[in-house]
Amino acid sequence: MSEETGFTLAELAARLDAELRGDGACLIRGLHTLSGAGPDQLAFLANPLYRAELKTTRAAAVLLRAADAGDFSGNALVLANPYLAYARLARLFDRTPRPDAGIDARAIVSPTACIDAAAAIGPGAVIGDGVVVGAGSVIEAGAVVQARTTIGRDCRIRANAVIYHDCVIGDRVNIHSGAVIGGDGFGFANDKGRWQKIAQIGRVVIHNDVDIGANTTVDRGALDDTVIHEGVIIDNQVQIAHNVVIGAHTAIAACCGISGSTRIGAGCVLAGGVGLVGHIEIADKVQITGMTMVTKSITSPGSYSSGTAFEPSESWKKTAVRVKQLDDMARRLRRLENELVALRDSGKPDN
Amino acid sequence: MSEETGFTLAELAARLDAELRGDGACLIRGLHTLSGAGPDQLAFLANPLYRAELKTTRAAAVLLRAADAGDFSGNALVLANPYLAYARLARLFDRTPRPDAGIDARAIVSPTACIDAAAAIGPGAVIGDGVVVGAGSVIEAGAVVQARTTIGRDCRIRANAVIYHDCVIGDRVNIHSGAVIGGDGFGFANDKGRWQKIAQIGRVVIHNDVDIGANTTVDRGALDDTVIHEGVIIDNQVQIAHNVVIGAHTAIAACCGISGSTRIGAGCVLAGGVGLVGHIEIADKVQITGMTMVTKSITSPGSYSSGTAFEPSESWKKTAVRVKQLDDMARRLRRLENELVALRDSGKPDN
Amino acid sequence: MSEETGFTLAELAARLDAELRGDGACLIRGLHTLSGAGPDQLAFLANPLYRAELKTTRAAAVLLRAADAGDFSGNALVLANPYLAYARLARLFDRTPRPDAGIDARAIVSPTACIDAAAAIGPGAVIGDGVVVGAGSVIEAGAVVQARTTIGRDCRIRANAVIYHDCVIGDRVNIHSGAVIGGDGFGFANDKGRWQKIAQIGRVVIHNDVDIGANTTVDRGALDDTVIHEGVIIDNQVQIAHNVVIGAHTAIAACCGISGSTRIGAGCVLAGGVGLVGHIEIADKVQITGMTMVTKSITSPGSYSSGTAFEPSESWKKTAVRVKQLDDMARRLRRLENELVALRDSGKPDN
Repeated sequence: MSEETGFTLAELAARLDAELRGDGACLIRGLHTLSGAGPDQLAFLANPLYRAELKTTRAAAVLLRAADAGDFSGNALVLANPYLAYARLARLFDRTPRPDAGIDARAIVSPTACIDAAAAIGPGAVIGDGVVVGAGSVIEAGAVVQARTTIGRDCRIRANAVIYHDCVIGDRVNIHSGAVIGGDGFGFANDKGRWQKIAQIGRVVIHNDVDIGANTTVDRGALDDTVIHEGVIIDNQVQIAHNVVIGAHTAIAACCGISGSTRIGAGCVLAGGVGLVGHIEIADKVQITGMTMVTKSITSPGSYSSGTAFEPSESWKKTAVRVKQLDDMARRLRRLENELVALRDSGKPDN
Repeated sequence: MSEETGFTLAELAARLDAELRGDGACLIRGLHTLSGAGPDQLAFLANPLYRAELKTTRAAAVLLRAADAGDFSGNALVLANPYLAYARLARLFDRTPRPDAGIDARAIVSPTACIDAAAAIGPGAVIGDGVVVGAGSVIEAGAVVQARTTIGRDCRIRANAVIYHDCVIGDRVNIHSGAVIGGDGFGFANDKGRWQKIAQIGRVVIHNDVDIGANTTVDRGALDDTVIHEGVIIDNQVQIAHNVVIGAHTAIAACCGISGSTRIGAGCVLAGGVGLVGHIEIADKVQITGMTMVTKSITSPGSYSSGTAFEPSESWKKTAVRVKQLDDMARRLRRLENELVALRDSGKPDN
Repeated sequence: MSEETGFTLAELAARLDAELRGDGACLIRGLHTLSGAGPDQLAFLANPLYRAELKTTRAAAVLLRAADAGDFSGNALVLANPYLAYARLARLFDRTPRPDAGIDARAIVSPTACIDAAAAIGPGAVIGDGVVVGAGSVIEAGAVVQARTTIGRDCRIRANAVIYHDCVIGDRVNIHSGAVIGGDGFGFANDKGRWQKIAQIGRVVIHNDVDIGANTTVDRGALDDTVIHEGVIIDNQVQIAHNVVIGAHTAIAACCGISGSTRIGAGCVLAGGVGLVGHIEIADKVQITGMTMVTKSITSPGSYSSGTAFEPSESWKKTAVRVKQLDDMARRLRRLENELVALRDSGKPDN
């Protein structure tokens, strides 16, 4: 069976090694939420908060835990981690086009590039001198890969992404449209008020199984390389400056900015809009909440935050004024405490 | 008459249904501000603050309200809303190239795409299998539209924009260069410390009369669609995550980030750099000021803000330290209040 | 000698007008940090903090100041500003491809464009009607330059960048991949709840020696031009709205957003993630620290900041609550002060 014809519930049970309850011949043509699924779609219950939806779902079948399956009479696939099972099945229903291997006649490929016969180069893609593209990799329409960059196996470089020269991309790396990998780091020397550009002669090295979102930028190193380790996932519109190093399996949500030479540990999670100054180190397993400004190194795992909570603009205006008075307020508070002690110690106030 | 030859003031008065004062034969070849306009240009007075400039303007004529026209002796077009009139006239002087209908010989169009004869496909544009492009739409140079996406009538997809597969774009939608529509949402399941990608099988649905700025990203839904309703305007470098829904006629300024599954109402205005966490709801007619961090749902219309006011860095350093002492300060303040009450109630301090 | 064969230390000393100590025949094939340099690479000591690394470096030679050279026995180039010397030498080892002059057969160039014979137009680049490109300029693969834009001498427009129509680019301007210059400013008039687009008929004017980072956007003016003066350097993912003017030699780090009609002086430095509201003026020589929100004009040089310091999320939650109580706290503090004065003045508390 296939995405087009659908899969039987029994087939899916076998793929997932799940316990099948109900009609194994039931045909599944898609995935959806409990509330959104139609009668030929599979839904999943991962969060017990949605348990009530089991009663009303129109789904053909549901992925769920044994603990949630008790009072559900519909078709079901029972397993320990329904969310992970959903993640595994989603790819069966993915309609992302899969181009055939080969170089499109309208691609522009240097005669000195080395393209594996099992790679696909799309129309309008431009591949520079000495580039290497491994088996199973897809370079989509309009993407540009400049001289001597190497791309491993089973990568996907989406339409109009750009990878500059001399970068190294591992295996199974996804780079979304509009991402720019290997642009010059922001390195200038100030020469009597004028900025003199410093050629950025390091590279970008991206290890295996990295995912890079749309319009994200990763600058090449000034001298050393910018390095993104294995299994890192990066969302859209993230800026990663020169000489940054990101540890394995770290996740970086959209709109974060990581300044130059900062090192982030492994297994970290940065929520959206986080900013890190340059030349600091973040330990492993650090979590940073949205829009936090990180101004120095973090040496212990845990969750960190900054910023103020939002409020109606009228009260916020008062708050914003008061924040600037805080140092004065703290001094006055200290003085009051001292005066009160003096007053109490004095026996009576006019002593 | 035309942009090249200019328009007479009488022609413009007729277009706008405005009262003409002065020389109707006066030739207008451009639009500008009161202070910047030359002797063949039309200026406008919308904000009474600039009224004094009426005395010094070199403009051929001025768009203004009757209330402002009293002591102005130059040529004038008098009407109720000069700013709106300026908005209407500006398009007459717009020099954005208007390509002829037809498919450029150097465009790369799938034989299964359906391109209306009155659409224009630019050189180097890449149109995938099963794509539909309606009458009057322009797909500029280097833009990529992937399989089965449909684009309505009179849209303009600017150079090097990318629209992924299976998206739906309404009529009169503008998408600026570098925008990426339909990229994968940031959906991963954590499997023992490793991120497993979840195929994003929803779509992006953009309704009529939407404007999307340069380098803005709108991710496709995980299962449901990401939806942008009619008349929404979005500035540059905005990030809209998977499953977000944006209500009609909402305006989103540059550099905002909207996290996954968040729903924004109709008629809202988000100023620049606003960040919204995921899975919240924003009511209709909410205004959010610049760089505000929104961490929970907003249920009432009105204006909301967060953040601290800027100050010289030296005093800010003190403030930033004090902010972290706030909880301590609040406790000490409460204690002082209690102690003062006790002191006053005691009759005398050493009682 | 060349990048490929290397340079002798004596050659480099002559280029830099530096004092040569040690073996002038020593061959230099690259540049690196003191700790990273191999035995055929030149390192530099600019920051005295790294002086200890002189003892352990494997570098072939070191660029340093006379004051630091005393106890260093290796090969050295001694001069007043080692960092600037490094900046000058880095370009010798830059491997950025340098295309030959000429129009690639797969470029798409309007017959009315005027391309200097000493310019290079890459494959898949698209050059519109009436465009002018000066000698020594390089328009890389997939870049799009629209009608009537002029580009000076020795510019480099990187792959897939887009410049809209009627813009003016000076000499020696670098524009990185994914940057969009001249997109429409975010100008709409609200007409009874609907947004009516205002054609943006101004231009972008970029003066000489400007550097613009990857995925940065610079919008065209509404009526006046958006202007970037000489020697300005702009990092990645910066948003510059319509009618902004940026003074000479100002530096803008990544992820900044400058709202419409704001004017920034000369010699300013904006750190990453700074946001400026519209219609304000920033004086010359202002420095703004990372993620600062600037809500009104700055009239004096100096450094400015906003925002709160990060802390563990648990304590931050308390802080965030307290910030919203600040106005109340300030009033209570004032009341306490008054009460304490009254108490002290009263002679005794129950008076």
